[in-house]
Amino acid sequence: MAQQSVRHATSVPERGSGIGVGLMGLGVVGSGVARILAERASVYERRIGRPLQVRRILVRDRHRRREFDPAPNLLTTEAADLLGDPRIQVVVEVMGGEEPAYSYMRRALASGRYVVTANKEVMAKHGPELLALAQDQGVDILYEASVGGGIPLIAPLKRDLIANEITSLRAILNGTTNYILTRMSHDGLGFQAALGQAQALGYAEADPTNDVEGIDAAYKLAILASLAFRTTVQPSDVAREGITRLTANDFRYARELGYVIKLLAIAHHDAGHGVQVRVHPALLHAEEPLAKVDGVFNAVEMEGDLLGRVLFEGQGAGSMPTTSAVIADLIDLARTIANGPAGRSTWHHAAAGVIRPFSELQSRYYLRLRVPDRAGVLSKVCGVLGDDHGISISDIIQKETSQADQTAELVIMTHLARESDMQSALQQLETLPAVSRVGNFLRVEAGRLTSAGDGSAPDGAVVLHGL
Amino acid sequence: MAQQSVRHATSVPERGSGIGVGLMGLGVVGSGVARILAERASVYERRIGRPLQVRRILVRDRHRRREFDPAPNLLTTEAADLLGDPRIQVVVEVMGGEEPAYSYMRRALASGRYVVTANKEVMAKHGPELLALAQDQGVDILYEASVGGGIPLIAPLKRDLIANEITSLRAILNGTTNYILTRMSHDGLGFQAALGQAQALGYAEADPTNDVEGIDAAYKLAILASLAFRTTVQPSDVAREGITRLTANDFRYARELGYVIKLLAIAHHDAGHGVQVRVHPALLHAEEPLAKVDGVFNAVEMEGDLLGRVLFEGQGAGSMPTTSAVIADLIDLARTIANGPAGRSTWHHAAAGVIRPFSELQSRYYLRLRVPDRAGVLSKVCGVLGDDHGISISDIIQKETSQADQTAELVIMTHLARESDMQSALQQLETLPAVSRVGNFLRVEAGRLTSAGDGSAPDGAVVLHGL
Repeated sequence: MAQQSVRHATSVPERGSGIGVGLMGLGVVGSGVARILAERASVYERRIGRPLQVRRILVRDRHRRREFDPAPNLLTTEAADLLGDPRIQVVVEVMGGEEPAYSYMRRALASGRYVVTANKEVMAKHGPELLALAQDQGVDILYEASVGGGIPLIAPLKRDLIANEITSLRAILNGTTNYILTRMSHDGLGFQAALGQAQALGYAEADPTNDVEGIDAAYKLAILASLAFRTTVQPSDVAREGITRLTANDFRYARELGYVIKLLAIAHHDAGHGVQVRVHPALLHAEEPLAKVDGVFNAVEMEGDLLGRVLFEGQGAGSMPTTSAVIADLIDLARTIANGPAGRSTWHHAAAGVIRPFSELQSRYYLRLRVPDRAGVLSKVCGVLGDDHGISISDIIQKETSQADQTAELVIMTHLARESDMQSALQQLETLPAVSRVGNFLRVEAGRLTSAGDGSAPDGAVVLHGL
Repeated sequence: MAQQSVRHATSVPERGSGIGVGLMGLGVVGSGVARILAERASVYERRIGRPLQVRRILVRDRHRRREFDPAPNLLTTEAADLLGDPRIQVVVEVMGGEEPAYSYMRRALASGRYVVTANKEVMAKHGPELLALAQDQGVDILYEASVGGGIPLIAPLKRDLIANEITSLRAILNGTTNYILTRMSHDGLGFQAALGQAQALGYAEADPTNDVEGIDAAYKLAILASLAFRTTVQPSDVAREGITRLTANDFRYARELGYVIKLLAIAHHDAGHGVQVRVHPALLHAEEPLAKVDGVFNAVEMEGDLLGRVLFEGQGAGSMPTTSAVIADLIDLARTIANGPAGRSTWHHAAAGVIRPFSELQSRYYLRLRVPDRAGVLSKVCGVLGDDHGISISDIIQKETSQADQTAELVIMTHLARESDMQSALQQLETLPAVSRVGNFLRVEAGRLTSAGDGSAPDGAVVLHGL
């Protein structure tokens, strides 16, 4: 295809035409970024048109053992080795903390380098200044990973929602506290016990202050609210309360009233009245979408005056989700450096699709049959499914015996089976004297919550498990 | 701020420096786009740096009465009036249907014009060809509005998830059928009755075939799967079943088994085995996030190998949500035309934020008090809240009478009150002899599901409503 050949023409790199990357930090996130960039170098080169080349990595200790060990000659303890290297066009900052990260980013931008950062504290406190500096220098600073891990939030606010006036934003932005609150809510734990669990699992730090006092969430809210409302919201503008004074009883009473308790980050914008930004534990109706966001997941609900309510949910932290956002920003910048704005909308089709036949589908099935209400029917039906087609049954419910025509309705849930086997079994069932009519059959979509043998016992029905 | 002044310098338009737009179609979506572009011209000019100027609008009938009436001299029935107008740089296609929309888009791209489209049928069938043509011409075609209305889906797949290999995608992509299935599920309606309701409300067309047979969802799935898997998935590749053979009984049995029934669009990619794409009704565990997406809402769950599961939910159709996506694409192109790739990351802060004091917050409150278990306490507490601070109470629960110290726990839910009044009441309650201790107080976050007087009666507790 024409598009393809054009891409290939520009994607053959000349020697030295790679885009030079300097990585600052080789902790949990930095190791993830370095490892994925190494493992997927050729994949990302195809997506950009030129290779990404990590030139230097800033670390505190050159000799520490790490999850991922880059070539030793890449490591340096001197920031100047990155900031003065003419081969480095993009600095990726994943050190965390305000200093020295803030100073390094300023120096990177001031020297005409692009910056990608995951640093919520620096962006919340110094975002406007760094963005202005980038603009003055004709470069850019991207910070998708600073809020919500791998969930796209910054880019949608900058691009996809731009036709709207955003009126409100409600979010769960801190996975640590959401994990603690989930344990308190589901297991009846007190705060200290739930915190201890989170610490044991590595979800909370030894000093959990930043999380449990809502400081981390306030940084993230300041960034989102600034973007959403096109204004400058500082972390100190955010009214903030932590979760330390919640007790098991509060969760119990809230539940009795139909509520759950979540640490919410909330921003409202009323034309003429300004912005209200706050982070505090709040009762939320149990049926609200955010009320169902449990464990270490994050979610953000935004309201735009054109598009209405939109919800984004996913893993808000962790090495790989954060790496996903950091590399997305890096590839975006690399494409701009490599190609300019053109070619952004490509379909990215490497080849015509290889489509698997539907007959190869593996699924569980729901089957509703109208059958004569007499002995022997069940064994015939089970024989067609099991003996003839190898389809095993997880549940059978017999429903609605009709006195009028002496028939009953049989609902069958199968274990995993092949679509082609199921279609063949259906054809056979349709001609079976023991079956008056195949009422319906439906596929069961497996999900996080569905095990292969799942099925619950309804009231007043014959349920036979595991036939 | 430096950034601000730079933006202003470039945003003063010279006469005639606007970006010329040709609009094709003035139906439900087209009228929305035309009206919002007219109403927000100065807002969008600030966001782009140059004004958007609608030069011509293609209609079928110049004299039809419309929801929004543009200047009559803009209207034309001749496509050539747009496609030959040198003042038009961007063509916005919101006519719908395969032809003549497809031919017009080809001509627009071939003449070096940028294109924005909401057309799922054309993009699903001809996307690769149009994208290749755009690339050859050094322009671009954007199509965010073709899937999921205002929910950002295309742009996140093109940009934010690019570091990932997408392994699967599960979605509710058709609001009409989701509305019908929601009515069948919640109200026990049969298919025809639920369809009739959807038609009466304008959610379904007189000929509902495209929706109820899954054709519309298959177009959208083909577009998403092509992007997600970097391949070309045609609508004819999608295995497809509609919802017409579902009965009220199926919903009842599914519920008894712990499931709901949704029309799902599903795409899987297994390395080495190709792509499986299908649209059909499926049983989905009732606790799955997609199972809770009701009515005309759409949702897409994607799984990336780095970021894990991410969910996007919102209004998948309608004039304003679709307008939100069309204008986002238009502004993106206009910025590229006006400024090149630079300046994309600006914070967009028009001014330092006006932050509302937290004391002005209006909220409902949850209050837990330890009180002496004797007569007269309740009236004193209610007196402080109601008489002294004007805070009215929606629910009171008395819990956990302690025999040891003759105290009880009192849980109070208030109606809407002012934070400053609540804080003052709390101070007074803390010194009140009738209150041993203020156990906790929490704000209640109002949502779609919470009315001002909401509160349910728990078992085994004294509940006093509406004091």
